[in-house]
Amino acid sequence: MKKAVYPGTFDPVTLGHLDIIERSSKIFDQVIVGILANQSKTPLFTVAERIDMLQRSTSHLDNIEIASFEGLLVDFVKQCDAQVIIRGLRAITDFEYEIQMAHTNRIMAPDLDTLFLTTSLNYAYLSSSTVREVGMLGGNIDIFLPPYAADKVREKYKIAKGEYL
Amino acid sequence: MKKAVYPGTFDPVTLGHLDIIERSSKIFDQVIVGILANQSKTPLFTVAERIDMLQRSTSHLDNIEIASFEGLLVDFVKQCDAQVIIRGLRAITDFEYEIQMAHTNRIMAPDLDTLFLTTSLNYAYLSSSTVREVGMLGGNIDIFLPPYAADKVREKYKIAKGEYL
Amino acid sequence: MKKAVYPGTFDPVTLGHLDIIERSSKIFDQVIVGILANQSKTPLFTVAERIDMLQRSTSHLDNIEIASFEGLLVDFVKQCDAQVIIRGLRAITDFEYEIQMAHTNRIMAPDLDTLFLTTSLNYAYLSSSTVREVGMLGGNIDIFLPPYAADKVREKYKIAKGEYL
Amino acid sequence: MKKAVYPGTFDPVTLGHLDIIERSSKIFDQVIVGILANQSKTPLFTVAERIDMLQRSTSHLDNIEIASFEGLLVDFVKQCDAQVIIRGLRAITDFEYEIQMAHTNRIMAPDLDTLFLTTSLNYAYLSSSTVREVGMLGGNIDIFLPPYAADKVREKYKIAKGEYL
Amino acid sequence: MKKAVYPGTFDPVTLGHLDIIERSSKIFDQVIVGILANQSKTPLFTVAERIDMLQRSTSHLDNIEIASFEGLLVDFVKQCDAQVIIRGLRAITDFEYEIQMAHTNRIMAPDLDTLFLTTSLNYAYLSSSTVREVGMLGGNIDIFLPPYAADKVREKYKIAKGEYL
Amino acid sequence: MKKAVYPGTFDPVTLGHLDIIERSSKIFDQVIVGILANQSKTPLFTVAERIDMLQRSTSHLDNIEIASFEGLLVDFVKQCDAQVIIRGLRAITDFEYEIQMAHTNRIMAPDLDTLFLTTSLNYAYLSSSTVREVGMLGGNIDIFLPPYAADKVREKYKIAKGEYL
Repeated sequence: MKKAVYPGTFDPVTLGHLDIIERSSKIFDQVIVGILANQSKTPLFTVAERIDMLQRSTSHLDNIEIASFEGLLVDFVKQCDAQVIIRGLRAITDFEYEIQMAHTNRIMAPDLDTLFLTTSLNYAYLSSSTVREVGMLGGNIDIFLPPYAADKVREKYKIAKGEYL
Repeated sequence: MKKAVYPGTFDPVTLGHLDIIERSSKIFDQVIVGILANQSKTPLFTVAERIDMLQRSTSHLDNIEIASFEGLLVDFVKQCDAQVIIRGLRAITDFEYEIQMAHTNRIMAPDLDTLFLTTSLNYAYLSSSTVREVGMLGGNIDIFLPPYAADKVREKYKIAKGEYL
Repeated sequence: MKKAVYPGTFDPVTLGHLDIIERSSKIFDQVIVGILANQSKTPLFTVAERIDMLQRSTSHLDNIEIASFEGLLVDFVKQCDAQVIIRGLRAITDFEYEIQMAHTNRIMAPDLDTLFLTTSLNYAYLSSSTVREVGMLGGNIDIFLPPYAADKVREKYKIAKGEYL
Repeated sequence: MKKAVYPGTFDPVTLGHLDIIERSSKIFDQVIVGILANQSKTPLFTVAERIDMLQRSTSHLDNIEIASFEGLLVDFVKQCDAQVIIRGLRAITDFEYEIQMAHTNRIMAPDLDTLFLTTSLNYAYLSSSTVREVGMLGGNIDIFLPPYAADKVREKYKIAKGEYL
Repeated sequence: MKKAVYPGTFDPVTLGHLDIIERSSKIFDQVIVGILANQSKTPLFTVAERIDMLQRSTSHLDNIEIASFEGLLVDFVKQCDAQVIIRGLRAITDFEYEIQMAHTNRIMAPDLDTLFLTTSLNYAYLSSSTVREVGMLGGNIDIFLPPYAADKVREKYKIAKGEYL
Repeated sequence: MKKAVYPGTFDPVTLGHLDIIERSSKIFDQVIVGILANQSKTPLFTVAERIDMLQRSTSHLDNIEIASFEGLLVDFVKQCDAQVIIRGLRAITDFEYEIQMAHTNRIMAPDLDTLFLTTSLNYAYLSSSTVREVGMLGGNIDIFLPPYAADKVREKYKIAKGEYL
């Protein structure tokens, strides 16, 4: 059985993340979405909230598991008994950082490999940080996020649906 | 069963190609190496010679098949009953071209997806065209190619082993 | 009156070119589409055919003029009495070449300026050369081209509509 | 009448910004320089100081207006009754971020478009943050800034003119 | 006598830095490694600790001097009576920042020049920040650092050798 | 004595090449400008003409030697008894190709190293091929080339000075 881990912060999950998850679920027997519980940054959503949003947004897929982890990604992948790390590539600056991390991870864990998918054209411009900023400034976020996640962002910023600036 | 196609010109196969083939063979149940028989370019090696070099260089792997194709890549992948196209990423300029092709292929064949692996550090600088040029100028090519392919390049350029400039 | 020139080869005009033309027509009072009649390359379509395809594809816009030119772009722009050159940016490799040309043109003609638009997401992967290759190999080109231009490409390659490989 | 907004932080305005403003003023009937009053960052200059520096540096141009805004850029552009956002492109990393913002803004406001100018060669290396750092370390900033802005930076860092380290 | 300055943070010195130092020592008569004592960031190691690690890691080379500096790099280079600044290039994002700094420094000090070496393939993925993160998370850092520096990182994070997660 | 080789096609030498030669001549004891006599391309100028243009353009510098070579660059550098290859970096696409060549050369000749200088801002947009195209189309080339080389390009294209289109 081929298992892959798709790691990220998912703060919140966007339609771009969901696109990668859906395409990975067709290629691998099981995909574990791994939420990095990095304590040094201050996220908008708690790990529990991010797990909840990811579970509801992927409930139509039957080979997805949501988990969180601390520590080295390669250790988490081994604990999951997975062989592959999945990453989405949007742009060049992504690419350079990703290639650096892929090489570092291969040196630390030669048995693991990183596979890249290119983000679909419709979501190539999307990042969680842009979405958080648009949400904070009262812009329409329904076009960027799964419906449940969009509601949660509005709740955080206390904005009623349809009441955009 | 998950099948992947790894397309290319392989004129000749390099240690960088071989690295991608070996890593892909661990991730997919079967990997078909697809030699593009593009008639408009003048290759150094015939398709038959390239098949021969690839077969000998991958004889230690038991889930690799070597084939050649003309026409659209997406049609070849469907004929192979494969779901995935594999490509190696060395550098930024690669990346832009590859992303363009991946998007074009997804639009023509939405059921297929392209997965990228980053070329191992040791082979990141390598390209078949550089190797052909070094070979033609009489430089040492044993460090870039599988042994059988290196011999074939020397034959083409009529250079005895060890007789470098 | 603000006039802009949008230069290119347009061999053939794609939906990506058309997107840039439509958006430019809203920003400038008049847009002259300038077909570069470069005699050293062998185009698929004659200049007359390219003018025809562009005219039919832009007939819904009333401030577009189609013309062809030889020689330096900056001389053509001055003859048109335009102040601005329009270029579409798809990707990084584009960007580097475009920036080089923009600087060269400003040095030769300090009164002219080059403005860049980013190609819409839906067409960001598109290039005339990819379309020609897909057309030659018998793939479906209706998704990349205005209908009249798609018909003309099929005529060139003697392919009846719907008879794809 | 064609109106364009040139948004930025302008902390402080550099000769590179001024170059973009001057060139835009020739292409559009009116250019509104929009200072982003982002409260989360700690700027060197207050919004009032930045308005003052921009007004004095652009007093030789008669179709420039200086304003500040909070919230979404697209909302500010609409309030200004402008159709176009102007951005300067210096380098690749700029380009990727800018393309992302341009796509996000087009999705939120399909009537608006973003136009890019390439920064003149003489200012291509310049950024406000580099200038602030050089100023803080006592380097000569007269070569990077309009004279009035250079004086204001020296005042902030309590450096008499000509007293460089 | 040709003297070069190799500036950086070196927090801590990696095998990638050491590779650049060794290669520079063959090209120039003397190489001064200049530690930037930037007080606004919070480094892992004090300047004294970084000097110590660099001295021990370069003790096999006889034309290397270790120093620290505050203020502008160009002033430090002049104080050293050096003509050249050395920088290592790993990747594109590096390259853009480096080119910006090289141009800024040439404008401030036209007599000085910046020379770039490409980081060796084996270390192209390496950065001090990645190493600090791997060290903090208990990963194996012996493959990234000179032995003495690896011991010092373990001390900081109170990890006994061989006790990796 | 530190000797460096600056290789290239120099068809013709531009002000950008001359800038790199002048700066290199200050850093190294001797600089050998190596003209690649690649027989597969059709140059505008013969090797003898290119040697002549380079000699006249560098006659004010006393540590420059002009030579031509065939075969591998690393072999030429060793014959010159030089330790260093000099290359100018203008842009990202340059950078990727250059990094690939630098790694290939280090693998074939570990004793040699490649050093990069960034092209001065004034010449960053310049390439010999752009200059040849501008010259062929009758544009003003005096702003791109040393005076003697500009005359020679005009001779090739039979254009009297001042008779631009």
